[in-house]
Amino acid sequence: MSEAKPRVVIVGCGFGGLFAARALHRAPVDLLVIDRNNYHLFQPLLYQVASAALAPADIAQPIRTILRDQQNARVMLAQVEGVDLAARTVDAAGHVIPYDYLILAPGAVDNYFGHDSWGAHAPGMKDVGEATLIRSRLLRSFERAEFEEDPAKKRALLTFIIVGGGPTGVELAGAIKELAVDVIPRDFRAADTRRARVLLIEAGPRLLPALGPDSSARALRQLQALGVEVRLGEPVTDILADGVRVGSDPIHSYNVIWAAGVRAAPLTATLGIPTTGPGGRIAVNPDCSLPGHPEVFVIGDAASLTDDRGRVVPGVSQGALQMGRYVAELIERRVRGTAAGHTAPFRYHDYGSMATVGKSRGVVEIGRLHFGGLAAWLAWGALHITVLIGFRNRIAVLLNWIYGYFFRRRGSRLINRSSDEGAAG
Amino acid sequence: MSEAKPRVVIVGCGFGGLFAARALHRAPVDLLVIDRNNYHLFQPLLYQVASAALAPADIAQPIRTILRDQQNARVMLAQVEGVDLAARTVDAAGHVIPYDYLILAPGAVDNYFGHDSWGAHAPGMKDVGEATLIRSRLLRSFERAEFEEDPAKKRALLTFIIVGGGPTGVELAGAIKELAVDVIPRDFRAADTRRARVLLIEAGPRLLPALGPDSSARALRQLQALGVEVRLGEPVTDILADGVRVGSDPIHSYNVIWAAGVRAAPLTATLGIPTTGPGGRIAVNPDCSLPGHPEVFVIGDAASLTDDRGRVVPGVSQGALQMGRYVAELIERRVRGTAAGHTAPFRYHDYGSMATVGKSRGVVEIGRLHFGGLAAWLAWGALHITVLIGFRNRIAVLLNWIYGYFFRRRGSRLINRSSDEGAAG
Repeated sequence: MSEAKPRVVIVGCGFGGLFAARALHRAPVDLLVIDRNNYHLFQPLLYQVASAALAPADIAQPIRTILRDQQNARVMLAQVEGVDLAARTVDAAGHVIPYDYLILAPGAVDNYFGHDSWGAHAPGMKDVGEATLIRSRLLRSFERAEFEEDPAKKRALLTFIIVGGGPTGVELAGAIKELAVDVIPRDFRAADTRRARVLLIEAGPRLLPALGPDSSARALRQLQALGVEVRLGEPVTDILADGVRVGSDPIHSYNVIWAAGVRAAPLTATLGIPTTGPGGRIAVNPDCSLPGHPEVFVIGDAASLTDDRGRVVPGVSQGALQMGRYVAELIERRVRGTAAGHTAPFRYHDYGSMATVGKSRGVVEIGRLHFGGLAAWLAWGALHITVLIGFRNRIAVLLNWIYGYFFRRRGSRLINRSSDEGAAG
Repeated sequence: MSEAKPRVVIVGCGFGGLFAARALHRAPVDLLVIDRNNYHLFQPLLYQVASAALAPADIAQPIRTILRDQQNARVMLAQVEGVDLAARTVDAAGHVIPYDYLILAPGAVDNYFGHDSWGAHAPGMKDVGEATLIRSRLLRSFERAEFEEDPAKKRALLTFIIVGGGPTGVELAGAIKELAVDVIPRDFRAADTRRARVLLIEAGPRLLPALGPDSSARALRQLQALGVEVRLGEPVTDILADGVRVGSDPIHSYNVIWAAGVRAAPLTATLGIPTTGPGGRIAVNPDCSLPGHPEVFVIGDAASLTDDRGRVVPGVSQGALQMGRYVAELIERRVRGTAAGHTAPFRYHDYGSMATVGKSRGVVEIGRLHFGGLAAWLAWGALHITVLIGFRNRIAVLLNWIYGYFFRRRGSRLINRSSDEGAAG
């Protein structure tokens, strides 16, 4: 009997893939979710792993556990190597997996805009491995500064550069400055971590370009009050092992973090179809399907779509999960034969944007309501705790935050051995 | 003024090194603690990281933070490359560090008794990297079993072998069996994890040889009740990529864990003195000093000592921390010039032994009082929570345990990417 059910394969279990899978829970389909990790990662909090506040396990939940009670779903841990659109099969870990419907939600990777050598010196923030690498380098810099006698080198060890003034860059800059000023000073004897220099460099004219100019100005003021140096309108022209070049101005540093852009995951390039959207994204039809392939959908960061109100769907979790739910509904209707092919095009709903600036500050925009400060920070915390997948993680994260807030400590200050820097944990 | 103070260097910040450092908090010395990790690891709970119950950060606390208020102490993150006993200096990360007193507490590494090739197939349980490697392999085996069609291979994927029936082996075997039976069955569709085979192989005639025969029998019954197969008196004769050989009997498995023995850390071999104790340990004087070097002490797993009551100091945390405190007192007396050289020899106090068997079972021995079952498990939990270094870790661990107990879930089920298996996090 189960033979007869249409096979739906979802590649990638970020917000898009996960919400598509969950939305299909009543659909008469055989669902297979494939991801290269065994966990769904709550990516909006990844910067807190990089800044030693949370452990990776606090923001990761096994995909199997999330979907354990969804009887139509199976989960496969595998790297998808390719898709054969003509044969309707997916290649993964030596298996050739047939599908009737395919949802591609492979996400994004760092985009160095052609400067691939920059990646070695300036890791991004796309997965647990990168976040723990950033954490290790960051903490190791303070350790080295403690015993460095050359003042110039010591200064460079205590200089942290974040490239890119979007939400990730803003949140990371605030968290690192706060770590240096508020959490660790008493742990060190010779290094004055309070004097650590945190630079946030943005090529464009303002921070948080996706938000309103008032929020940009508010975030700028909050970061400066915290002691973060912000440079606007200055593009980074080179990144080397010992620093960056901003315009023609060299800044000496051993800690550069890349938060300046992402592109679609490499899988999109293997499909044999033109990736016409920006950053290797695939320009999809108004119903998120692949041109010429109504049975294949691309959602989330790998898709490029302007919705029917002329709004470009942004590469944020809201965009991905809304696309996931939309596509799931479309497939369920087709499978059930109800209103086949007559579903309205995908429309993005903006429920607001927010970013934190250190502890107890931030900016929030919900429609026309824009605010900042402690209220923004509390709203941000409440939303993220509510949405965080998995009961245990919610409690653990809340506990870590409360602990960090009152005791000015961070719960996850592990430096990985250099031989294995950057691995998950 | 601080120039004139005697310089005390401690190499290694496990239980021995940490308790020596803390016991010196009022001593008029300049103290430097060197460790290759930035954290003190609460090793007795490492098996819970390997079995996905706790995150590494739950049982690791930055050494700097532990010693932040101890003004005579500095902390250095470095690998010690060697010691020059004649020049009285330590080589670490390019620094040549002079000392007046040296406490060597480098700990232990896995001992494969000459079969070094076994290490690649059967990781041990000595650090965070090994524990997360074991965790990744363990969880990956269940993942692979879910999609394996060859029944023999599937059986091997669901066979877990622990070599060595000491506390680590007993605790790990119980935790893995319980993971398979109690925590994950509903997460899988095709693999029946309840039928996973967990084998504990001990070459000697009984489990927990350091405890009484009644406790050994109790642990054996408890493990068998849980469904663990225990083989006693059967030495492992070979370990390969796809299994082990017990006597001449091959057992097919992709998950073999080494808990059969440790030897002193490699640093001891670089001292240029004979390592006459078992497992490369250094036979020390009754006051833990190095023969011919009254200013150098070796403590913990790297030392071999029979105390004045004829009791061999066991390689457990109690032994290390008691030696650490003893040596600290000895140094403080010498520095202060009180009763110089007249301190009584080190004497080991056995405050009891315990081990858990899965959730809610265990064995405890405190003097003549021997008991098992739930009472033993509660006693074990209470002790470990009390001793666990750092307030936040206590709460986090307790919360994880309570969560695991009532919800039958584990908090840290992350599989590292194969490229970076085995790293900290």
